[in-house]
Amino acid sequence: MKIVVVNPNTTASMTRAIGETAARVAAAGTDIVAVNPADGPASIEGFYDEAFAVPGLLREIARFERDAPADAYVVACFDDTGLEAARCLARAPVVGIGEAAFHMASLLAARFSVITTLGRSVVALEHNLSKYGLSSRCARVRAAEVPVLSLEQPGSPARARIDAEIARALSEDRAEAIVLGCAGMTSLAASLSTTHGVPVLDGVAAAVKLAEGLAALGLRTSKACSYAPPLAKTFDGVFAGDAPR
Amino acid sequence: MKIVVVNPNTTASMTRAIGETAARVAAAGTDIVAVNPADGPASIEGFYDEAFAVPGLLREIARFERDAPADAYVVACFDDTGLEAARCLARAPVVGIGEAAFHMASLLAARFSVITTLGRSVVALEHNLSKYGLSSRCARVRAAEVPVLSLEQPGSPARARIDAEIARALSEDRAEAIVLGCAGMTSLAASLSTTHGVPVLDGVAAAVKLAEGLAALGLRTSKACSYAPPLAKTFDGVFAGDAPR
Amino acid sequence: MKIVVVNPNTTASMTRAIGETAARVAAAGTDIVAVNPADGPASIEGFYDEAFAVPGLLREIARFERDAPADAYVVACFDDTGLEAARCLARAPVVGIGEAAFHMASLLAARFSVITTLGRSVVALEHNLSKYGLSSRCARVRAAEVPVLSLEQPGSPARARIDAEIARALSEDRAEAIVLGCAGMTSLAASLSTTHGVPVLDGVAAAVKLAEGLAALGLRTSKACSYAPPLAKTFDGVFAGDAPR
Amino acid sequence: MKIVVVNPNTTASMTRAIGETAARVAAAGTDIVAVNPADGPASIEGFYDEAFAVPGLLREIARFERDAPADAYVVACFDDTGLEAARCLARAPVVGIGEAAFHMASLLAARFSVITTLGRSVVALEHNLSKYGLSSRCARVRAAEVPVLSLEQPGSPARARIDAEIARALSEDRAEAIVLGCAGMTSLAASLSTTHGVPVLDGVAAAVKLAEGLAALGLRTSKACSYAPPLAKTFDGVFAGDAPR
Amino acid sequence: MKIVVVNPNTTASMTRAIGETAARVAAAGTDIVAVNPADGPASIEGFYDEAFAVPGLLREIARFERDAPADAYVVACFDDTGLEAARCLARAPVVGIGEAAFHMASLLAARFSVITTLGRSVVALEHNLSKYGLSSRCARVRAAEVPVLSLEQPGSPARARIDAEIARALSEDRAEAIVLGCAGMTSLAASLSTTHGVPVLDGVAAAVKLAEGLAALGLRTSKACSYAPPLAKTFDGVFAGDAPR
Amino acid sequence: MKIVVVNPNTTASMTRAIGETAARVAAAGTDIVAVNPADGPASIEGFYDEAFAVPGLLREIARFERDAPADAYVVACFDDTGLEAARCLARAPVVGIGEAAFHMASLLAARFSVITTLGRSVVALEHNLSKYGLSSRCARVRAAEVPVLSLEQPGSPARARIDAEIARALSEDRAEAIVLGCAGMTSLAASLSTTHGVPVLDGVAAAVKLAEGLAALGLRTSKACSYAPPLAKTFDGVFAGDAPR
Repeated sequence: MKIVVVNPNTTASMTRAIGETAARVAAAGTDIVAVNPADGPASIEGFYDEAFAVPGLLREIARFERDAPADAYVVACFDDTGLEAARCLARAPVVGIGEAAFHMASLLAARFSVITTLGRSVVALEHNLSKYGLSSRCARVRAAEVPVLSLEQPGSPARARIDAEIARALSEDRAEAIVLGCAGMTSLAASLSTTHGVPVLDGVAAAVKLAEGLAALGLRTSKACSYAPPLAKTFDGVFAGDAPR
Repeated sequence: MKIVVVNPNTTASMTRAIGETAARVAAAGTDIVAVNPADGPASIEGFYDEAFAVPGLLREIARFERDAPADAYVVACFDDTGLEAARCLARAPVVGIGEAAFHMASLLAARFSVITTLGRSVVALEHNLSKYGLSSRCARVRAAEVPVLSLEQPGSPARARIDAEIARALSEDRAEAIVLGCAGMTSLAASLSTTHGVPVLDGVAAAVKLAEGLAALGLRTSKACSYAPPLAKTFDGVFAGDAPR
Repeated sequence: MKIVVVNPNTTASMTRAIGETAARVAAAGTDIVAVNPADGPASIEGFYDEAFAVPGLLREIARFERDAPADAYVVACFDDTGLEAARCLARAPVVGIGEAAFHMASLLAARFSVITTLGRSVVALEHNLSKYGLSSRCARVRAAEVPVLSLEQPGSPARARIDAEIARALSEDRAEAIVLGCAGMTSLAASLSTTHGVPVLDGVAAAVKLAEGLAALGLRTSKACSYAPPLAKTFDGVFAGDAPR
Repeated sequence: MKIVVVNPNTTASMTRAIGETAARVAAAGTDIVAVNPADGPASIEGFYDEAFAVPGLLREIARFERDAPADAYVVACFDDTGLEAARCLARAPVVGIGEAAFHMASLLAARFSVITTLGRSVVALEHNLSKYGLSSRCARVRAAEVPVLSLEQPGSPARARIDAEIARALSEDRAEAIVLGCAGMTSLAASLSTTHGVPVLDGVAAAVKLAEGLAALGLRTSKACSYAPPLAKTFDGVFAGDAPR
Repeated sequence: MKIVVVNPNTTASMTRAIGETAARVAAAGTDIVAVNPADGPASIEGFYDEAFAVPGLLREIARFERDAPADAYVVACFDDTGLEAARCLARAPVVGIGEAAFHMASLLAARFSVITTLGRSVVALEHNLSKYGLSSRCARVRAAEVPVLSLEQPGSPARARIDAEIARALSEDRAEAIVLGCAGMTSLAASLSTTHGVPVLDGVAAAVKLAEGLAALGLRTSKACSYAPPLAKTFDGVFAGDAPR
Repeated sequence: MKIVVVNPNTTASMTRAIGETAARVAAAGTDIVAVNPADGPASIEGFYDEAFAVPGLLREIARFERDAPADAYVVACFDDTGLEAARCLARAPVVGIGEAAFHMASLLAARFSVITTLGRSVVALEHNLSKYGLSSRCARVRAAEVPVLSLEQPGSPARARIDAEIARALSEDRAEAIVLGCAGMTSLAASLSTTHGVPVLDGVAAAVKLAEGLAALGLRTSKACSYAPPLAKTFDGVFAGDAPR
């Protein structure tokens, strides 16, 4: 089974880290291919960055669909950037790391809180939770106010700030599990779970397992209506009228 | 990895069918153990049957927890009978087949409909969808008005009725995927998907893959609050004060 | 008129206290019969205890339905344990003390808060509020962190902790009424109302009046669909196929 | 116990019918006093009529509060016209016949439909259901398109139209109980219940029993915030600055 | 274009201030006519005052509709007192200042908080937000605990209290815009926006622009159902059977 | 006042029609500048087209912000494509034609239905309604199944199909107003309103009046959190680190 994990930002070191996490949790027999677009924002922090990341994300997926289709795709930005558009493009399942973590957390705890990077991303995540139907399962989306790229820097105060927000989530929100709201936090999950004594979910790992599960069952994205293949259009896009049906 | 699948009713033929589906979809290296309680209702159709099925379900899980803990448990009744109580009892993840199908369908389609057996079960499933947060993803819960045990009988009109309800769900509810709302329908999913051209989800298969995924990631049921181990009580129950913590 | 009040736990002293409250508030001409199952948990604190309390509860109601039907039944656990299953069994109205208090509080105040015993019960009560439709009327479910059985012990800090939570509910939640979230708090309502200057509702009293009202109007549980009588099943249950229709 | 039932419209024959229903269902020892304002609309059909009915309603309640306070008040228009304002005025409980029927139906059935008179009243009732929190319990508010005052006319097609709407509610809405959405339908409830085989609730009867119950328990309207007594104002109103506190 | 702004309370100095704000923001070519009823409460603080203000409001609108119809009407009380009834009466659009501010704030910020005068008005505003559908856009309705009429008094602590509540809304509610919840605060909006660095919306100004916009587009209140003209009634009301259709 | 109306697709004839509608409804003194991106999809039908339209839309807004800032911007695609990202970029208000029509319809009718082009767009519009908070005001989003570009073709069956859907919306959904769900329907609104006797709203016209109103009041997009200016990023985007703050 081949799972293509697309980091929609262009920071290759983050793509590598995401790919390593994905490969570490993948089942025997699952090939993880982690890629990122050549062009686009170096990180995705808020609505504006999302907008410019989506075309690159879709071009990556289109490239695989045309040349070497995957059994499932993972969109590896916690905002689930471009997820619905990717579903129009792919026949295989497409799983966002945000939704993956939300769904898995719902199986382990009555309510969870999310710890994301910056306050400007909170409303986008709340929109997603509402769209997925899971708002009532999320006690609160919290921002640790650490920029995405600082998560990779040695000596950053990121870990301390994330610890502090988790502690507040457990006491103030009565959260019973924690979802880490950024692909850049992927390496922290196990350690944070040990520290705080509750499940701490990383979206990359969650998405890989959901993608494997869907693909193993032969399930594919519904093409019935919302995610029908794009209509042929004369524009400077990926498929320009010959999108795969 | 060992996954214990508990059919909470006492119909052994249904347990066998469930176990076969589970084994068929399980990954290499996953052992499926399918069991049912010795005592309790032969099928679960509505609130009353649920109530009498739960103690037997819990005794099965308790037996494994004490003697041979599983890596994950699946509750194989679409009503997700006794799911929260089971989570109090187990340290490993516990996945209901109803919630499993709802969550997986949410990853493949913008909206799904559920086809269950009898009208009397509809409200219980609607309660569950609301509890899980997924009501907005479900267009409608429909009843095919086929009793659970008739699903196993040759010559039953069950298949025709289920086909008719799926057709209505696609045209009237604008459903883009179908969830089969009974463990007894587990063998029909692939054929129905072919017939109707949309993803058709069986909860048993979905739950096995979610359970495998959670267990592979080392995730466990949160013991922070709602699913904390039972308090010691002097009563004629399973653990009578020595429930595992 | 005969109202059967079933305490689903097995603590006879609590059954007596519940019966006394019920009898005190009952109208002239109402006979209160307070009973509890012989077997089951001594108190109900969380999902696990609930599961083991329900069969005993149903057996008590079944006994009355067969031998000496009541005009209405009250389920005297604040979690409204087994309420829907009991409605399948009885032709007469069945009222849970939790829902009774929620509905009555809604007639007296724009918003109320609930003070229950332990944090592990909070989510179950939130589920109930959602199921009844009354989540928007409840500002918050709070736990005083006093075990149920300690409420009966002289010198327990229970009263002080409940006072403190009520004070917080009035100032922080802007609650305008208080619902006491445990049958064991039944004797405190009047005194707490005097102390805090807002309506404080006890579910036992509320349920008795609602049960009297429904029964006096000749209203009965709908048998149209969700609460239809149990189907005949060959299992080791109460009615084993001859449940009253 | 004295319960004052205020019909907010000025049709004395309707007040008499309401008073008779109320007296018929009242407990021994309950005095029903049914009144209507001298001035205002002859019936309440939609938002505009409501507006002109409220001052008269409040003047009636104010008159009793000043001269001969009731133990509880019933607002006998299904729109629950002026209910919150009446709660500001009265120390005793105030129950609207709409909310009373909604709350009681919720105790008997998983979902109910409402049959009201004219389509123009549907949205007002939906607003009320949302305000009370009970929208999710109501499958649909239906209009039989019979004017309020025609309900009293011999030979009117009202009964046939109501029957037809109830039949549709049971088959199309999957309603399990029916709420009659007009005080003028009060005499039809028992007969309709017999015809259709499900509980059919009349708000007048429901409100009297809820009012009796609240008053018997010594419960009173919360004065904590939303229903605090009116502030002294220099205007041509009822109390002109000396409203009872 | 003529816009009639009705202050539903009888305080002429407030009507003048409202009229001045309305005229100041009106487009060239818009005539603002600001009026108030002769009789009714001097200010509207809570449900009770609202009830007595509505008939006077409707009589003012009816007078214009009969003698000199406006192109649009503005109801200039933040509770949107009598708004639906006014829509039944008028063919032109009717805009409440509360709803106007809520809708406009929704176009500028992901979430807003409301600062109103007294705590007793909070629930009425929450009801309105729910009715309009905008509850999810409002982080919190806060009361500065300043009486309406004190807003006009020199040396009142009103400004300081409003400043303090805005500061809390920004830090505690994560509000991104502020809605001033009283027509009496109309002159403070610009200054508060400068102080706090976020959009601060005054309902009077917002309603004038929405009313101008609707009228300029030739849009009128729908008469299809809920806001159909009042039915002819024999009562001491405005139109006594000859309401304009 | 200058209002820049950006059609996010590249069909110049549609941009001209949108610009003409905008100019026709604009106030004296309002300059309408209608533009479209050079590159991108020729029409926006579903999630995939949206994704490729957004960068072009943002580049247009960025160009104006840098060279000749507008007093307000209108995003002239009914999906409100890229609306939040545009708000991050602009200091002036940004109004989507979808949200504009929804908000204005809410001021004229208790409930409205939307008639859009293709079924694949329905879920995206439902997501928007939920995000804006206005789901409860919308009875149903209906698709006339007419492709966007066919709306401009003489002899197309589009008008007949739209008429048929409006008729269904009025009878089946009890809609009291209609929102036209595509910028290409802008010229049909007045005629459809005459035919069907209810308000029919065109988003382009609605957005221009809302944009004029917001700008006239000096209101600007909140920069407090969600719509804060983009962070400096090293990527091949519009501002590459020098986005205006």
